[in-house]
Amino acid sequence: MSGFKGKKVIITGGLGFIGSTLAMKIVDLGGRVVVVDSLIPEYGGNLFNVKGYEGRLKVNIADVRDAFGMSHLIRGEDFLFNLAGQTSHIDSMENPYTDLDINCRAQLFILEACRRFNPGIKVIYAGTRQVYGKPDMLPVREDHPIRPVDVNGIHKMAGEWYHRLYYQVYGIRTSSLRLTNTYGPRMRIKDARQTFLGVWIRMLMEGKPIEIWGDGLQIRDFNYVDDAVSAMLMAALSERADGKVYNLGSPEPVSLKALAEMMVRIFKGGEFRILPFPGKRKAIDIGDYYANFNKISADFHWTPQVGLKEGLSRTFDYYRRHIEHYL
Amino acid sequence: MSGFKGKKVIITGGLGFIGSTLAMKIVDLGGRVVVVDSLIPEYGGNLFNVKGYEGRLKVNIADVRDAFGMSHLIRGEDFLFNLAGQTSHIDSMENPYTDLDINCRAQLFILEACRRFNPGIKVIYAGTRQVYGKPDMLPVREDHPIRPVDVNGIHKMAGEWYHRLYYQVYGIRTSSLRLTNTYGPRMRIKDARQTFLGVWIRMLMEGKPIEIWGDGLQIRDFNYVDDAVSAMLMAALSERADGKVYNLGSPEPVSLKALAEMMVRIFKGGEFRILPFPGKRKAIDIGDYYANFNKISADFHWTPQVGLKEGLSRTFDYYRRHIEHYL
Repeated sequence: MSGFKGKKVIITGGLGFIGSTLAMKIVDLGGRVVVVDSLIPEYGGNLFNVKGYEGRLKVNIADVRDAFGMSHLIRGEDFLFNLAGQTSHIDSMENPYTDLDINCRAQLFILEACRRFNPGIKVIYAGTRQVYGKPDMLPVREDHPIRPVDVNGIHKMAGEWYHRLYYQVYGIRTSSLRLTNTYGPRMRIKDARQTFLGVWIRMLMEGKPIEIWGDGLQIRDFNYVDDAVSAMLMAALSERADGKVYNLGSPEPVSLKALAEMMVRIFKGGEFRILPFPGKRKAIDIGDYYANFNKISADFHWTPQVGLKEGLSRTFDYYRRHIEHYL
Repeated sequence: MSGFKGKKVIITGGLGFIGSTLAMKIVDLGGRVVVVDSLIPEYGGNLFNVKGYEGRLKVNIADVRDAFGMSHLIRGEDFLFNLAGQTSHIDSMENPYTDLDINCRAQLFILEACRRFNPGIKVIYAGTRQVYGKPDMLPVREDHPIRPVDVNGIHKMAGEWYHRLYYQVYGIRTSSLRLTNTYGPRMRIKDARQTFLGVWIRMLMEGKPIEIWGDGLQIRDFNYVDDAVSAMLMAALSERADGKVYNLGSPEPVSLKALAEMMVRIFKGGEFRILPFPGKRKAIDIGDYYANFNKISADFHWTPQVGLKEGLSRTFDYYRRHIEHYL
């Protein structure tokens, strides 16, 4: 990881959950980091996320939909971690235009800026498992058919394709990591806009029951944030990753019910309820999902280091100390 | 085809090549047709295309990017043929934002208008083989991986997905036909923005050599416009088509060189040259392509009726009489 020493790094969505964790890690590795975030209240950006690092990184409040701003900020940078995005599935159905502007139009601004002003930059894009839709077979490999089930999935698919295209046509070195459910300190817990796990944590902290929708048997995989960040750092430094798409995933997929039981046990309290799907949610549910992540393991030896119990335990510790900054 | 008698039909891109042919056919079948077109000079719209039908259909000049206008126009219609689009691959790379606005944002406007004001409408979307990119195997089936090679392909893929999604989530009856190279009277021949075949026809008419890029051995398939129109009419009337995607294609794929030879023969004059790819074009070329169209043949017995020789002959006849309206 010495490859970041003295390097210039820009992170869109850099005050968000994953972006801020990445930013602080790169600062620790000797990188010169600019975080770009617009602090939209419904999204994940939170100034508290970089508490203690304020003097060691640069915070630039800006929206990725600001084409001129982005094209200035990107000049001269060595690495771009392109994490800004609208992530809520429900919001994307209710307001598809905002989702389009952030997840498509702004991505074109950013890549056009790279092409015109900084073609040597390396770009890591935060993709999502959401593009696979309801899996044909498990675990899901990168060559599984793309089949988004909501507007957000369609736009994240397009955003990823832009990154691949700018590599194929213009030689801009881009990689996409298709993240699965990522959790840990600094995640949004106010609501389920990042992942349902956020709101589950909040429910436990507030002494309310966790709500599981469906039968509770749906399987998911989870990455602790430090593991997702490691994958991004590795992809940034690896030439093998140029132009490629990788799944992240976990060797311990669990059912939602088993996860809820584990959380109650680790939290030492709380309860959960299994409830039918609310109408809108059912139509876009994807059943079971977990990834095959052999490709990234083979290409640069990434595997998750933090198990689910340990990760949940660290997460609860964080919110026990800092919950007032996340509600 | 009696299903169109007395029905209200709206066609976006209705003054274009395929849209106008479709409009006049539906008028002949007894339908009440509104064509919507913005007559952008670089696109296919041309008032001469509906010559002779001016009193029998309604022309509404409007841009599909006009959300309020579209949401008014769509109310009360029985069928929407959604053909308006930016089709130029090169233009999409030079101005990706315009391509995004027309092929994505406007499609969302249109589908949102259907959902809110006319959920019973049947929608036929003009998709494209372009979404497959460089084929893995030939002929290409609908379940071939999606792999667009330019911005236009990414946006047409997203536009098609919106149509599928609005069926899956909201029950709006949509079908997408993935058109291959379509040719015939009324096509744009000013330049290669619709298909290279247009500009080849122009070259012949003007006594200039046809330019084939590459080695001339690239294989393509071609549909005469009346056959593409028939497929759209069948899909509109068939419940089996709801929520589905179909390839169009031809039983007589040919190499570009063989096509050029055939054109010179049928035109009774002219010549062609085989030239290396211009730089920008090479990067987005897809090699050989021809479709497997068994799915649409099985679902509603569509097969092309007009062979390539006959179709080219009719096309030359048309432009010999009317070329002044197309330059």
